[in-house]
Parts: sequence; structure tokens; C-alpha cells
Amino acid sequence: MSLDTGATIGILGGGQLGRMLAVAASRLGFRTHIFEPSANPPAADVAHAVTTAGYDDHAALRAFAAAVDVITYEFENIPTAALDVLEAERPIRPNRRALATSQDRIAEKDFLSGLGLRVAPYHAVNDAADLAEGLARIGAPAILKTTRLGYDGKGQARIMADADADSALAAMRGAPAVLEGFVSFSHEVSVIAARGLDGSVSAYDPGENVHRDGILHTTTIPARLTPGQRSDAVLMAAKILNTLDYVGVMGVELFVTADGLIVNEIAPRVHNSGHWTQNGCAVDQFEQHIRAVAGWPLGDGGRHSDVVMENLIGDDVLRVPDIAAERNAALHLYGKAEARPGRKMGHVNRVTRGAGDPRRS
Amino acid sequence: MSLDTGATIGILGGGQLGRMLAVAASRLGFRTHIFEPSANPPAADVAHAVTTAGYDDHAALRAFAAAVDVITYEFENIPTAALDVLEAERPIRPNRRALATSQDRIAEKDFLSGLGLRVAPYHAVNDAADLAEGLARIGAPAILKTTRLGYDGKGQARIMADADADSALAAMRGAPAVLEGFVSFSHEVSVIAARGLDGSVSAYDPGENVHRDGILHTTTIPARLTPGQRSDAVLMAAKILNTLDYVGVMGVELFVTADGLIVNEIAPRVHNSGHWTQNGCAVDQFEQHIRAVAGWPLGDGGRHSDVVMENLIGDDVLRVPDIAAERNAALHLYGKAEARPGRKMGHVNRVTRGAGDPRRS
Repeated sequence: MSLDTGATIGILGGGQLGRMLAVAASRLGFRTHIFEPSANPPAADVAHAVTTAGYDDHAALRAFAAAVDVITYEFENIPTAALDVLEAERPIRPNRRALATSQDRIAEKDFLSGLGLRVAPYHAVNDAADLAEGLARIGAPAILKTTRLGYDGKGQARIMADADADSALAAMRGAPAVLEGFVSFSHEVSVIAARGLDGSVSAYDPGENVHRDGILHTTTIPARLTPGQRSDAVLMAAKILNTLDYVGVMGVELFVTADGLIVNEIAPRVHNSGHWTQNGCAVDQFEQHIRAVAGWPLGDGGRHSDVVMENLIGDDVLRVPDIAAERNAALHLYGKAEARPGRKMGHVNRVTRGAGDPRRS
Repeated sequence: MSLDTGATIGILGGGQLGRMLAVAASRLGFRTHIFEPSANPPAADVAHAVTTAGYDDHAALRAFAAAVDVITYEFENIPTAALDVLEAERPIRPNRRALATSQDRIAEKDFLSGLGLRVAPYHAVNDAADLAEGLARIGAPAILKTTRLGYDGKGQARIMADADADSALAAMRGAPAVLEGFVSFSHEVSVIAARGLDGSVSAYDPGENVHRDGILHTTTIPARLTPGQRSDAVLMAAKILNTLDYVGVMGVELFVTADGLIVNEIAPRVHNSGHWTQNGCAVDQFEQHIRAVAGWPLGDGGRHSDVVMENLIGDDVLRVPDIAAERNAALHLYGKAEARPGRKMGHVNRVTRGAGDPRRS
């Protein structure tokens, strides 16, 4: 099934990713319908319709599903019961297995390890005995994380020495957790890859990520990778997508180490580290995702330019007047009224260099 | 005055130009409100609000104006009385003089001639005596056109010989008309130029236009122009914008002749021949227009790539599946349900070549 012009794509989540998905959908002649609990979300400005309701409002979920042709999402922590209601009415793409795998850190690591991909050492922790066992096996420093990301933010606690164990466990507030060993890596890259309904796979050139205060700060294309690493990164992403029978765009974060690439985490959606594609490629990650979930052929993943993407976090938006006057700088603001600390307000793609003939890229 | 994120830009007209203006506005964090008499226009899919009312509904016009921060438009044939109502409430950009000049073929040609720019020979025609006088002066072949474009399509009649005069005049149905002489030109180019609220001017590299059945078929960048012609084209556009104290994007169509450039017509709005900028530049014509009317600095008008834009007219949309699978092809569909002959359904920008370092372009 491939959707025709005028069809409606339902999007769970009305943040900036939903907003940019809606814009990309409009380029292909599709309408979008946003489902979002909070009022006036960023995506509402550019969507054809908006449902304001909670994920526990099953009547609203059913009406939303009935009003759209296919359902996708901008975030992975969608309650299972809501997915059950939605899936009874319309296809959800990417599929439930991708969601289930990425919603749970242990399920994700088990899945990736099962594919023969390397991940950081990890150990499931439900109580103090588990934690002691994990620390004995992995060693400090390590990090204890809840296995699921809740809506209220994620629980994480660093364990620099065994003495930190008790307070770290207390920070989990009884939630299932996983102890992860530290990985010694030189830098982080991510692969933004897509898989179509026909099983074809297309990956963008990997980008190199720099974080600041735990939030993505910049993504630079091209990343520092050897030709072998670049090829490994793309093959690893393709293996993940194919195994999950995935349809849509996925972000795969990888640590670059002296011994090869280690998977940090996967996100079953368009990804902040893929925003550079808006100004580096004829078909960006948002359109690629829409193409996939609509059953269209994937677009060309080649890039025509080098790009540095910089996130504008909180007060960074005060620099917008200067950035707006820069050469080769493409601004993308999300229409959020209030610039709270840590809040993603927009990003800028600086086209640093044309890549020559895009047919060769 | 420069608008802040979250401000609302009112757009008169809900067609594809309004749709792409709304998308560009969203990139800068603005909301858009569309005023359009017909139901479910293309721009409604991506606008924050839509007013469905006629241009004679002054209460609706006033409410629309009160709900927005600045007013712009996607077409030039807005009734004067409606503009009076709107302008009493909010600034209209580009200004009334630009509209008045481009709404009337004779006013436009008088204005351009007054600037010392060359236009095709023309003669005002209100009756048979005027037409005889015009034909004696200009000679056949020539073309008789109503001076104003009505909502019902434009009246045009070719006069290949004097014997065609009576039927051509009858086709004007009593409307004021202008007789235009034919110009012998090798090709047509257009300059998409912008002027900011601060008086700064930025022009995109001229594109070369090919028409088919009276409708733009392709625009190719770069156009065949000598360096002198390219510079002349941009200077002519800048002269027009400065004289009109213009704010926004204008399309200036030029005939290339052995003796130099002749102005065909000007359009006080984003222009079909500027659609290539969506995939050739960091800042496209739609964003450039929004920046100007919002009082922002103009963006970089440089381009990073060569592009061929092809309009998809009527049944051309049947080729969309093939185009969607092409390399380096960026699709832009307008979400129109019915593919009537002559109807603009979308366009495709084929990125034919990266232009190297955009800082040098």
C-alpha cells in the first residue's frame, strides 16, 4: 500500500520532530494530524489537524486513528495500552517490535548483542545484590540507569566507586535498572538510516556528535571515520533495520574506539543528529521517514554539501539575530515561546562546503 | 520593527505560494494565518489558522488583520477596497505602490520606462481608434491584453495582421487594454530579488525559463547570460525595488535580446521561477520573503548547487512515482486533489551539480 497525495499521516507527539515531519509530509502532498497531550505544541502550527488528549484517552486515540491513514511517532515512550488501541485501527510504522526494543535498555542491549554487535558491558539490576554482582563484573566507574525512560525524565546515577552503590540504587526509586560500564571512546558518531516498506535501505553519511551538558550540541558532516569504519557503521545500521523489519528512519549512535565501533543506543525515529540533512541533501531525514511510512520509494540519501548542525538550547536563541545575518547559515526555529534552560529552541545548519557533484557522493 | 518567534504573518491567498510561504515562516518560528475565499486551499494544510471569506467581507478582513502582526500576499490582484480595510489595521508588505503598479499593465510599463528600463513597445487601447493608432505605430504581429488581470483569467488576443483587430478588441469585452509589440528575444530569464525593511537588497542568480502552453515549464540555473548581462539583470531588479521602496521578494522577468535585456513583467511576490532556490540555496525565496516582511535581515542569496526546476502540470503528477525514485530530485507537491489540465500540481528541483564552495558563489 502506498499513500496518495491528500492522504493523512498521523503523528504521535507534537514537538519539533513532529513539526518537521509535518513540513516534510506537506512537500509530498500529505496532510498530518498530530496527537499530543499538551496544548499548542510546536507541530500544531503546521499540521492540518490536532488532537489534544492524553494517551489514556482511548476514545480520543480511536478517533485519531480513524481519521488518519497510517500512524507514526516522534518519540519512543508511548504507553503499550495506547499502541494496542491504535494498532487495532491503523498500521503503526515503525512497528511495535522496534518500539518495544528501544523502550527498554536491557531489551535493546540484548537485541544488539544477539546480532553480534558490540555494546558497552551491562548488567540488569533490580536490587542491591544485583548491583553488587554487576559492579564485581563490570567494575567502577559505571552508570546506573532505569531501563525505561519515563515521562518525568530519566533516572541516571554515576558510580565512581563501590561506595556510591547505595545512593545510586536509591535514585532508581525501585524501578528496574541496568548498570552500564564506561566505554573509552575517541568520539561519537551517528548513522541516520532508513528502510522502506519494500525492504530497501538507505543511510546518510554518518555525522560526528558533540554533546554539552548531556544534550547534543553539534553534529559535523563528514565525521572523522576511516573508510572501513564508515562502511561498518552503515552495515551495522542496515543489519538492525533488516532484523527488526523496520519501516522508517532510525538513529543509531555509535562510539568510535580503537577496537572498532560500539553501539551506544538506537532511536526508532528521526533523530536530532540527522537535522543536518535538511540543508545537505535533496531528501532530508524527515521526508525520508514520511516516504517510508507512506510506502513510497526511499529518496536519494546522497548529500551535496558539508554541514555543521548546531542546536540552539535555551538562551542560545538570543543569538538568532546574529545567526540570521550569517552567510550559508540555515535557521530552523521551533516556535517555542519560552526559552527555558536545556530546552531545544531550534538549530542552525551551516553549509560549510559544497561537496562537488552530488552524483559522486 | 522586527517580529519575534511566535508572531503571526497574515497571508492573502491560500494557493501553493501561500503554502510554501507558511512552511518557510515555520522555519523561523512564525505562525501563519491564511485568508482565502475558497475552502480547503493548499496552504490550509500547513497554516496555524485559516479565514475562509471573500474579499468583499470587510468584517472578516478586519478580524483577520487584527489577528496577525503583518500582512503579505501570494498574488497581486487584490481588490483595492479590501486593501484599504486591511491597511487601516496592519502594515501590508510589499507596499500598496508595488501592488498598484503591477496590477495594471500600463502603469507597470510607464513605471519601468520612467526608470529608463526597456520594455516592449506598448499603446493604451480603449476603443477601435486607439487600436488602429497603436497598430500603425507598433505594427503587427502584436498582442492585445486587458490592462488588469481579473479573477476569471486574463483576456489576451494575438493580432497577426490588421484584419484581426476587430475580433481582438471584441475579446477584451470593453475592458481597458494595452497593445504590446512582439519582442525578438533569444530566451527569457528571471531575477528573484529581495529588499529588506532596512533597504538592503539581495538577488538570486538569474534562472532561465522555458514556457509550454503559456505556463512556466522549467527554470534552469545557471541561465545562459554573459557576465555583463547577469550584472545588468541584477542591477535592473535592484533599481525597481529601491524605487518602489519595496519590502519582500519580487520576480522580474526579462527577455534576452541581441541589444540587451527587456523587462517583460514584474510580480510583487514570490515567483514560480524562484522555486529552484528551495534546493539550491541555504535560504530560499520563501524564507527570504518572510524575513523581509518580518523585518529580519535578508538571508544569504548565494547558491550551493545548480538546479533545474520542472513544473508538474495536470497529468504530470502521474510521473511522481518515477520522479520519487530519481537521484538528486527534490519533490514539492501542493496537496491538490484533482489534477485538472493546466493546474500546477507540484514541481521537482533536480540538483544537477554542486557548485563547489558556496562561499565563492
